[in-house]
Amino acid sequence: MTTKMTAAELDAYLDEVFPQLHYGGRTFFVEAVGPMSARMRCDYHEKHLRPGGTLSGPTMMALADLALYAAILAQIGPVPLAVTTSLSYNFLRKPAPMALIGECRLLKLGRRLAVGEVAIRSQGESELVCHATGTYSIPAGP
Amino acid sequence: MTTKMTAAELDAYLDEVFPQLHYGGRTFFVEAVGPMSARMRCDYHEKHLRPGGTLSGPTMMALADLALYAAILAQIGPVPLAVTTSLSYNFLRKPAPMALIGECRLLKLGRRLAVGEVAIRSQGESELVCHATGTYSIPAGP
Amino acid sequence: MTTKMTAAELDAYLDEVFPQLHYGGRTFFVEAVGPMSARMRCDYHEKHLRPGGTLSGPTMMALADLALYAAILAQIGPVPLAVTTSLSYNFLRKPAPMALIGECRLLKLGRRLAVGEVAIRSQGESELVCHATGTYSIPAGP
Amino acid sequence: MTTKMTAAELDAYLDEVFPQLHYGGRTFFVEAVGPMSARMRCDYHEKHLRPGGTLSGPTMMALADLALYAAILAQIGPVPLAVTTSLSYNFLRKPAPMALIGECRLLKLGRRLAVGEVAIRSQGESELVCHATGTYSIPAGP
Repeated sequence: MTTKMTAAELDAYLDEVFPQLHYGGRTFFVEAVGPMSARMRCDYHEKHLRPGGTLSGPTMMALADLALYAAILAQIGPVPLAVTTSLSYNFLRKPAPMALIGECRLLKLGRRLAVGEVAIRSQGESELVCHATGTYSIPAGP
Repeated sequence: MTTKMTAAELDAYLDEVFPQLHYGGRTFFVEAVGPMSARMRCDYHEKHLRPGGTLSGPTMMALADLALYAAILAQIGPVPLAVTTSLSYNFLRKPAPMALIGECRLLKLGRRLAVGEVAIRSQGESELVCHATGTYSIPAGP
Repeated sequence: MTTKMTAAELDAYLDEVFPQLHYGGRTFFVEAVGPMSARMRCDYHEKHLRPGGTLSGPTMMALADLALYAAILAQIGPVPLAVTTSLSYNFLRKPAPMALIGECRLLKLGRRLAVGEVAIRSQGESELVCHATGTYSIPAGP
Repeated sequence: MTTKMTAAELDAYLDEVFPQLHYGGRTFFVEAVGPMSARMRCDYHEKHLRPGGTLSGPTMMALADLALYAAILAQIGPVPLAVTTSLSYNFLRKPAPMALIGECRLLKLGRRLAVGEVAIRSQGESELVCHATGTYSIPAGP
């Protein structure tokens, strides 16, 4: 079983459609994709820092949103109009100032809606720092 | 009835504790605070742009998180260790490339948890582009 | 401006399509509908009771789901296949053992998705006991 | 590694503190508990039925809430004042009219807050019908 886009193709696609994502220096990368799944990395950057030497909530939120997007596009191909309709986050621990890994697993990939969950950890760690669930609306085909 | 911090004091406090928030140019401002409420503005900036001339999800997510934070601190004063424990977003319409206004109303301000909702609109518009709810954990006092 | 179904029509429709809702005695009633809104009541019943003389979470959750359903059907008419795709709840205070009122306001009524929020209070009280947001998927028309 | 309460002890405790849960016939049972986890079953009952031969949303919502409660109490013992502060649900597929299994995994068990996710499936099936996340507030110890 294979995906419709590879991690490298997704990275190139994100560069093309979301160039502003890399404002101030690129930090988001698709690490891997698989059936109903994707793994994104967010490298450490000063712009993500918050007081106490931790990383900002919006950094984790962007990572989860992108991991979900990558997981969906890996399955269905480059559908530009897939849009996030909802996202829910539980912030569990303060992340250390280092790279974050977001692992997305799709719970449903319907014709019109895709739903997934994303587990975020500091790179190399086992404890979750954030857990997210989200829904994308997929436009009707031609 | 008054608040413990004014909008100007909150802006100064955010500058002090969240300097990286303004990476690439300051865009977030506390516009007003009141009993159980706050209003934040996010000015338009190229870094928030997404394809199709709309604004990114993380921009709206950051605005809601900050509006909730401002509403809470306006009531309880500068408690640095108040942390977001959960946030849920519904994305309703694509925002135009212009300033966003986030209006927060606290639904509960307990001793340990504060819960609020945030309505996000394009400046001067009446339709919601995003609706958020969130919870902050408030550390035990001395 | 008017709605496509009245409160009485919605009550009759719920009786017809959700007869098991009233298992053990009818407690849910549509009180009012309006443009983008509906108000549901859940009468006190022993089956909703929880220790400490409060009402169960599932009672509030069902009330919010029904208020959202009533608000949507009031606008679009009796579409039987509208289904809940997501619900999020914040439980704010323990409700007293008395009737609950759920007031729903639709935030978006799209062609495929409807999103709303529901404020739940004890009857006659002003403080919220629960706040909910939810999304319904609306089937494509004929 | 062991838990502070067994499945049988939790079942007896639920009977004692939530007797109204079984109104109209007992359907909820703790099947198993483990480190940071619990499995609940909800047997089929006519009161859970909805049109089209499916099960009601509130049935799944109650199952998730109870599975989370059982998973927490299994770890910390019978703390009566643990209360749900938030729950979020994604409804993925219509469940068949048969028993449901809710498997809870705790994502965090803090001193004041516990967070978990619950996967709900029809008994014997592998596909999720509902996914939930929730937070309980744990009262301060003596």
